[in-house]
Amino acid sequence: MDDHIYKIIEIVGTSNTSSDDAVSNALAKASKSIKNLRWFEVTNTRGNIKDGKVDRWQVTIKLGFTMKE
Amino acid sequence: MDDHIYKIIEIVGTSNTSSDDAVSNALAKASKSIKNLRWFEVTNTRGNIKDGKVDRWQVTIKLGFTMKE
Amino acid sequence: MDDHIYKIIEIVGTSNTSSDDAVSNALAKASKSIKNLRWFEVTNTRGNIKDGKVDRWQVTIKLGFTMKE
Amino acid sequence: MDDHIYKIIEIVGTSNTSSDDAVSNALAKASKSIKNLRWFEVTNTRGNIKDGKVDRWQVTIKLGFTMKE
Amino acid sequence: MDDHIYKIIEIVGTSNTSSDDAVSNALAKASKSIKNLRWFEVTNTRGNIKDGKVDRWQVTIKLGFTMKE
Amino acid sequence: MDDHIYKIIEIVGTSNTSSDDAVSNALAKASKSIKNLRWFEVTNTRGNIKDGKVDRWQVTIKLGFTMKE
Amino acid sequence: MDDHIYKIIEIVGTSNTSSDDAVSNALAKASKSIKNLRWFEVTNTRGNIKDGKVDRWQVTIKLGFTMKE
Amino acid sequence: MDDHIYKIIEIVGTSNTSSDDAVSNALAKASKSIKNLRWFEVTNTRGNIKDGKVDRWQVTIKLGFTMKE
Amino acid sequence: MDDHIYKIIEIVGTSNTSSDDAVSNALAKASKSIKNLRWFEVTNTRGNIKDGKVDRWQVTIKLGFTMKE
Amino acid sequence: MDDHIYKIIEIVGTSNTSSDDAVSNALAKASKSIKNLRWFEVTNTRGNIKDGKVDRWQVTIKLGFTMKE
Amino acid sequence: MDDHIYKIIEIVGTSNTSSDDAVSNALAKASKSIKNLRWFEVTNTRGNIKDGKVDRWQVTIKLGFTMKE
Amino acid sequence: MDDHIYKIIEIVGTSNTSSDDAVSNALAKASKSIKNLRWFEVTNTRGNIKDGKVDRWQVTIKLGFTMKE
Repeated sequence: MDDHIYKIIEIVGTSNTSSDDAVSNALAKASKSIKNLRWFEVTNTRGNIKDGKVDRWQVTIKLGFTMKE
Repeated sequence: MDDHIYKIIEIVGTSNTSSDDAVSNALAKASKSIKNLRWFEVTNTRGNIKDGKVDRWQVTIKLGFTMKE
Repeated sequence: MDDHIYKIIEIVGTSNTSSDDAVSNALAKASKSIKNLRWFEVTNTRGNIKDGKVDRWQVTIKLGFTMKE
Repeated sequence: MDDHIYKIIEIVGTSNTSSDDAVSNALAKASKSIKNLRWFEVTNTRGNIKDGKVDRWQVTIKLGFTMKE
Repeated sequence: MDDHIYKIIEIVGTSNTSSDDAVSNALAKASKSIKNLRWFEVTNTRGNIKDGKVDRWQVTIKLGFTMKE
Repeated sequence: MDDHIYKIIEIVGTSNTSSDDAVSNALAKASKSIKNLRWFEVTNTRGNIKDGKVDRWQVTIKLGFTMKE
Repeated sequence: MDDHIYKIIEIVGTSNTSSDDAVSNALAKASKSIKNLRWFEVTNTRGNIKDGKVDRWQVTIKLGFTMKE
Repeated sequence: MDDHIYKIIEIVGTSNTSSDDAVSNALAKASKSIKNLRWFEVTNTRGNIKDGKVDRWQVTIKLGFTMKE
Repeated sequence: MDDHIYKIIEIVGTSNTSSDDAVSNALAKASKSIKNLRWFEVTNTRGNIKDGKVDRWQVTIKLGFTMKE
Repeated sequence: MDDHIYKIIEIVGTSNTSSDDAVSNALAKASKSIKNLRWFEVTNTRGNIKDGKVDRWQVTIKLGFTMKE
Repeated sequence: MDDHIYKIIEIVGTSNTSSDDAVSNALAKASKSIKNLRWFEVTNTRGNIKDGKVDRWQVTIKLGFTMKE
Repeated sequence: MDDHIYKIIEIVGTSNTSSDDAVSNALAKASKSIKNLRWFEVTNTRGNIKDGKVDRWQVTIKLGFTMKE
């Protein structure tokens, strides 16, 4: 039954486009080194400002994945 | 004055497209059975992952509406 | 070293379009009177409902900027 | 032993008079359709402002009641 | 895609035996009137005391289920 | 549409009479310098004690108002 | 300088009259055995319901007082 | 009416057996010196680890009891 | 003195049996790859439901261990 | 096994010197009447201001100690 | 009695030296433009890292001061 | 643009000297194995007590660093 153990890590994705895109970028990056990504949860949404506009969205997510045997 | 009493319920909307769309789907569904929807508040944003991408956004919202006479 | 002191204010941006756009509208408005906006953090996302649809996104953000000499 | 199961709902009572009265109004309204109300807990106190005065207190409460057989 | 909308309710299960059993009792009761229960989350664990012992465990849970068509 | 931007400030009202009166005093004071006050939210209720009685209620509120053009 | 050390305790005051009165009752009771009560902070407001009305307000407060030499 | 004033204290019970048993041990200990224990609420569950197993459950609870006349 | 630096990770243990057993399963799994596990703290307790019963307890814990030299 | 029951109290230490020193002052005071102090946790850091400077640091801590037999 | 109304603002002080010094720098800066500063509360402590060392402490505080007549 | 993805880990630094020093020790340790440390945030400050004095400060921090290509 021990394949049902998950690990949770926290990463920050960024994007010049949108908050949703920052999440997608984080997933794309994490999936290069971690197999079995299962779910994410947004824990913080912030960003840098330049010339009165959003310069870079910074979205912190928790990422859950199945622990390797 | 008792028409100014509101009830708050909690629902989870989902979408393959975006986090905002998950909210819209939740409202569309709830409005079929509840009249007088007034406001919502996002309390959680998460999702499933498939092939290193967001498979389904899952956004939890609280929904406020006027209680029926 | 005292130029490294920041002030944080809280404002609510709104939009008929999207939650991200509500943030942009808040920044556009604040940048008219405040120079040196540096970062923002989303602290609440809610909205009004009309005819079972989002009528107006209301996103509360904290805004950090360098305090004037 | 299963009569000892309670349900909790969340409602917003309002009043032009006082914050306590907003709670009472919420209870009066809820008791019309729900029997066996047992306890409440205040989770938010806010209100509208008009001419520099409280126009309407809005108090959110959680309401616990015995689930019907 | 609109079958993927969930509703969340909050109930309190009780038990003279254990905290886990209080959760089971809550689920047993709720499943009599609600189909499609999907998940629960414990939000509070408390109880009454009698003669220096736990008299009744009271566990509050949030319950998620698929909204009916 | 940019008149729909609100600013939120935090103030502490006090009163020798009641917690509700402390809120009213805060609003009365704030309305002298700020136009367009729209809503408030209580974030903390405390007070000083003298001779075993409440000497002064101190209620912290967040105040929302429309940002000036 | 060590007279400036305070102890904080938590008590629940009750009242059939009002939430503010529940605080006053708690202070009256605590002041019988504790000298030098200095401040209080409300941490929870709840109550029992009877016949669709507040039966007893139950207000939890933290109480700070100077530690005895 | 002043017998309806409660005091709340915080204690940590431990057990080698289970999390529920840690609560029972805390109650057993507290009931030796405090009469009129009424309710408890779990605020934290943790433990020490030895050889990859739970060595000792440590459960923090708040304990409410009637204040003595 | 630098052996007194600890790392904290977050994992989710599951069990068909009990919430405590889900913690034990998480520790058993983690101890295969991490030496020097020292303590855990439960941060979330949830589960899946099947046929009106708990199908699988899912308990999230933070795990502290001594950082390797 | 019942010597492994701890009590937690909350006190506020103060200092004109530093936030760490406020903790030390609180411990020094508490250790005069309580044996077996085991750990502390900082829950709030604040202070009074005089002439644009920190006049007195006020640090609230929770203090854990072994309950007496 | 209306001189007993306070305003609370949020600022971030920084320092290369210590977390306490970051608070002092924030107070020194704020006191140049605000009279009647009364108290502060630390709400966040963070910093930048350079070469494996703290480069700049960044401490966010809430600042309370008497509102001007 | 994907070099702008950060990972966040949580570690506990300790020190016999001060709370700030506990942070520095944590950074010194982490920087041995992790390049590109960018920022930290204090999430908990506690410690052990011996003879009525702080024996060892234990400060939990979140550490952000650029994810390796």
